Amino acid sequence: MWGMSTPNQDETPVTPASMYAQRLAGLRALMKQNGLDGYLVPHSDEFMNEYLPPGNERLAWLTGFTGSHGMALVLEKQALVLTGKIYGIQVKKQVDRKYYTTSDQWLGGPGPWLEKIDARNLVIGFDPQIQSILEIKNFRGQFEPRAIELRPVDGNLIDQLWSDRPPGPHTGVEPFLEAYAGRSSTDKRILIGEILQKRGVAAAFLADPTDVAWLLNIRARDLAYTPLALSRVILFADGTVDWIIDPLRVSLEIRRALGNAVAITPPENIAESFMRLKAKVGKDKVLVDEHKTTYSLARLLEDRNIHLELGQSPVIIPRACKADAEQKSIRDAHRKDALALIRFMAWFADVVPRGQLDELGVVDKLESFRKMDPAYRGPSFETVAGFGPNGAIMHYRPTNASNRPLRGDSLLLLDSGGQYVGGTTDITRVLPVGEPTDAMIRHYTTVLKAHCAVARATFPVGTMGAFFDALSRAPLWAAGMDYGHRLGHGVGCFGAVHEPSADLSPKSRDEVRAGMLLSNEPGFYLEDHYGIRLENLMLVVPEPDKRVDNREVLGFETVSLVPFDPGLTHMTMLTHEERAWLSAYHTQIINEIGPLLVGSERAWLETVCAYFI
Amino acid sequence: MWGMSTPNQDETPVTPASMYAQRLAGLRALMKQNGLDGYLVPHSDEFMNEYLPPGNERLAWLTGFTGSHGMALVLEKQALVLTGKIYGIQVKKQVDRKYYTTSDQWLGGPGPWLEKIDARNLVIGFDPQIQSILEIKNFRGQFEPRAIELRPVDGNLIDQLWSDRPPGPHTGVEPFLEAYAGRSSTDKRILIGEILQKRGVAAAFLADPTDVAWLLNIRARDLAYTPLALSRVILFADGTVDWIIDPLRVSLEIRRALGNAVAITPPENIAESFMRLKAKVGKDKVLVDEHKTTYSLARLLEDRNIHLELGQSPVIIPRACKADAEQKSIRDAHRKDALALIRFMAWFADVVPRGQLDELGVVDKLESFRKMDPAYRGPSFETVAGFGPNGAIMHYRPTNASNRPLRGDSLLLLDSGGQYVGGTTDITRVLPVGEPTDAMIRHYTTVLKAHCAVARATFPVGTMGAFFDALSRAPLWAAGMDYGHRLGHGVGCFGAVHEPSADLSPKSRDEVRAGMLLSNEPGFYLEDHYGIRLENLMLVVPEPDKRVDNREVLGFETVSLVPFDPGLTHMTMLTHEERAWLSAYHTQIINEIGPLLVGSERAWLETVCAYFI
Repeated sequence: MWGMSTPNQDETPVTPASMYAQRLAGLRALMKQNGLDGYLVPHSDEFMNEYLPPGNERLAWLTGFTGSHGMALVLEKQALVLTGKIYGIQVKKQVDRKYYTTSDQWLGGPGPWLEKIDARNLVIGFDPQIQSILEIKNFRGQFEPRAIELRPVDGNLIDQLWSDRPPGPHTGVEPFLEAYAGRSSTDKRILIGEILQKRGVAAAFLADPTDVAWLLNIRARDLAYTPLALSRVILFADGTVDWIIDPLRVSLEIRRALGNAVAITPPENIAESFMRLKAKVGKDKVLVDEHKTTYSLARLLEDRNIHLELGQSPVIIPRACKADAEQKSIRDAHRKDALALIRFMAWFADVVPRGQLDELGVVDKLESFRKMDPAYRGPSFETVAGFGPNGAIMHYRPTNASNRPLRGDSLLLLDSGGQYVGGTTDITRVLPVGEPTDAMIRHYTTVLKAHCAVARATFPVGTMGAFFDALSRAPLWAAGMDYGHRLGHGVGCFGAVHEPSADLSPKSRDEVRAGMLLSNEPGFYLEDHYGIRLENLMLVVPEPDKRVDNREVLGFETVSLVPFDPGLTHMTMLTHEERAWLSAYHTQIINEIGPLLVGSERAWLETVCAYFI
Repeated sequence: MWGMSTPNQDETPVTPASMYAQRLAGLRALMKQNGLDGYLVPHSDEFMNEYLPPGNERLAWLTGFTGSHGMALVLEKQALVLTGKIYGIQVKKQVDRKYYTTSDQWLGGPGPWLEKIDARNLVIGFDPQIQSILEIKNFRGQFEPRAIELRPVDGNLIDQLWSDRPPGPHTGVEPFLEAYAGRSSTDKRILIGEILQKRGVAAAFLADPTDVAWLLNIRARDLAYTPLALSRVILFADGTVDWIIDPLRVSLEIRRALGNAVAITPPENIAESFMRLKAKVGKDKVLVDEHKTTYSLARLLEDRNIHLELGQSPVIIPRACKADAEQKSIRDAHRKDALALIRFMAWFADVVPRGQLDELGVVDKLESFRKMDPAYRGPSFETVAGFGPNGAIMHYRPTNASNRPLRGDSLLLLDSGGQYVGGTTDITRVLPVGEPTDAMIRHYTTVLKAHCAVARATFPVGTMGAFFDALSRAPLWAAGMDYGHRLGHGVGCFGAVHEPSADLSPKSRDEVRAGMLLSNEPGFYLEDHYGIRLENLMLVVPEPDKRVDNREVLGFETVSLVPFDPGLTHMTMLTHEERAWLSAYHTQIINEIGPLLVGSERAWLETVCAYFI
């Protein structure tokens, strides 16, 4: 999956338009009571999550907009819903423009809109518990020239109106076994502690639950797609930890496994935790990530006179570079996922000609194949099954309203992934329905060339993410094609499907390092017709037999093991090197997944792979 | 030419080692008199020139080091010569290490060395007339934690010791005709004035003489390789100019051409010029480039209470995007240069088997062919003619001491360029001597593949420099090869051979725009054996018949018209697309340069080109 996404809100009962008007009026009344001229409603929560628990979908509740990159700014007479560019069409459909101006020109916040309407001398409130230090810093930069004050207001105003707001998640914490994780929590804490020492800080406040999951080797089910416990830690440079979580969620087994270097503090006592932190670090600095730490927590730290050092979480790079055991369990998870996807594809090839399938049926059937594996814990994001024109909408998720029957001659874009105990998957295939046109075959094969260019690359240590993005675009540009998203992203190990790592994008200066798990997903989107994206995950592996100018060389090991489509691949468009890579890849699929199949499924796989071998 | 270079100092009479000791002692005595514990001697001058006039080669005078990226820091008992990485070998050879520690780890200045020797509580002097604001800002950042004061000292200490220091250049200013420049100075001044208005500044102080040359359509002969008048301008947002130059250098003809919107102020009256500037701009800001403006000029501006805005020169992008007339005269200059180089190469092919040639002979002979054209004004940088192992030394320039005879089986790397009235050239070819080995052919052909990948690229508007660097490295890396410099750089129009433009390097986010003149020079250097670099200049041109995903498309028009080497090119290693590009390129050479040749030279060209067509 190439970018942001959001849980599907369309399955909940439809909210009548009058309700949104009523909610907006309610918010304005509360603004007045609080002496505010405006109020910010971001798509965000206390943990800066990518996927919000239902009770944190305040923006959707207020405005109807369900995208993941957006915010509302409500003033006394006017209101704005501002989104990222990919939500330009969606926001216009979902939001009642009688009440809201919409804009997909994010530009760092609502400053340009405030300028356009010439707003001045206002007091705008925000909830300091759900906005990061950085967001508020940036918004203030936009607001101050217009004498607009951005004022923290305790107690979220939406929550005061939202009477049936779902409670927050509160699932039991589970251990993530060292057999999968490769490194013990103790080893990890000592490693990160040493990094803190080198950075000259006495401790780090890790506000991101994905950091906690990795550091403590724990998982939970607080979120739909990411196996997290929404919690935070204070990590000291000596490797000891104060874990801010409800103690009732942590079993004795886990406490014993973590040992007495890990203390537990209930979230309601976080202020005391910060006092102990101050007592321990004194005048030394504490690292916080300004993207991930909320305004209210930063204020709480500063109230204790703790000196903050703003910087990236020290967990990011060590976590991105998977240990050997992680790599092994990632390969295992991908074999399980490949089995499910191949069985689905064999079934699809058989059933689709009958004309009875639709997008939601595809999602359900694929899920049923994945569910057969006992290690499967659910999707790693909401499945994209876009047929024909829907495939060209980049943030598309099928709903009852948009669901298309798979009929006529076009393409199905199927982007999905699973959470398996031990590994997270993310894969996109394009399946033909009916008879593909020459253009479809040409477009598919060109995207496949772009995919191959990356998959078969070898490169010296130190190469940056932008290099791979460039490799993928060259064959597309030569054919007048392109895609409007990055080439790829990092993926967690039974963790977040979008995990900070080496970004593969045109501007990326991130170093691609051995052990990283990255997606390779070039595409092409023909508006109103179809979308193509071919995505595999790859581990970055050493190439010990190669040297570039005496430097060590790395390459990619593709771990997604699912065949491409023979009917959409025009072999004469491929170079000798591209054909060689595809042949080796499909041989590996036959060898590794073939023995897990029998009968017609196996026959289907062998026929498909034979085309490429 | 891929990077920095420096005039060859080795032809001057050899300075005996004892002289350097004496000079160092003299400097230390002056330091004492001035109450200084140390003194900085940078490779720099009042105009932040890349190529220094002889009288500004203070670093070479003091230490013997002639590289272009370096500085000395002399303390009471110790002294350092610090250089960029490419000068690591050269500095050790040139500098007497009895007196100086040498280091090629630039790391932003001498801070790490001061830490290593644990220097503290010192006063180090510098000449504020020859260091930029930015350099001093960076050095202070390194020095202050060690309580080391960096103190401006008026009157350069080296100049007080250097009794036979050559006087500064002072050549007559010549007009650069609009037929070449494409735009009148008035048009340029109004254009840049509008840019200043958009940036919200009332004026710009342009301290870089290359900015002056472009803005006023003038040239001169103050420097060896770049046709500049060392002067500065104040440009107001209304397009009027105060030109800081000795009025005796500016003829009546030029004054008339410039009109009364351009006032002239002698350099000794610059303080009055700044007073008038202050009177005109009042509280408004004045743009200065912190890379190009000296510390002393910035102080002079601030002493007048002028508010400075630090930023890139507004001239850079408009100058980098050549006007149609400039593009035409650039093509003309390249045809002239191609003629000279092709005649040289035909002569070389005939003469080299006799075994009488050496590197310096090559430089002289090539120069004699270039000189036949009346528009030729001299080399645009010092010619690199590196045979065998010398070709693998990246900053190599042949000297009497290093000069190698062209005998045995190896390669000659020949990187040269000319200044023609109307255009600047820069081209590298590799010529075989004797019988090339299979490895040489494989290496040459692989570098040629890298060159072709860039030359034949088409790309949507907005593409950044890093993309092209990546394109060039992919085929090299696949063969275990690489090069340790950037892919290419901007080139002026009868201007600097290194002109700020879109940098083509791994980290470059500079947009490659229509009209830019860029070098394409991938290479490969096999230490102790030979070097390969294949360099052409290219104009960025629109491709009106192409579209990428509905965006406009650009491509490259290679303007250097000199054949590659048939004996070093293994055609079966080339793809169909690479062969097609080479065929079209050599056809163009035959068509455009062929008619300018007769007899054996023409026959030679036709034979060589036929191989590729």
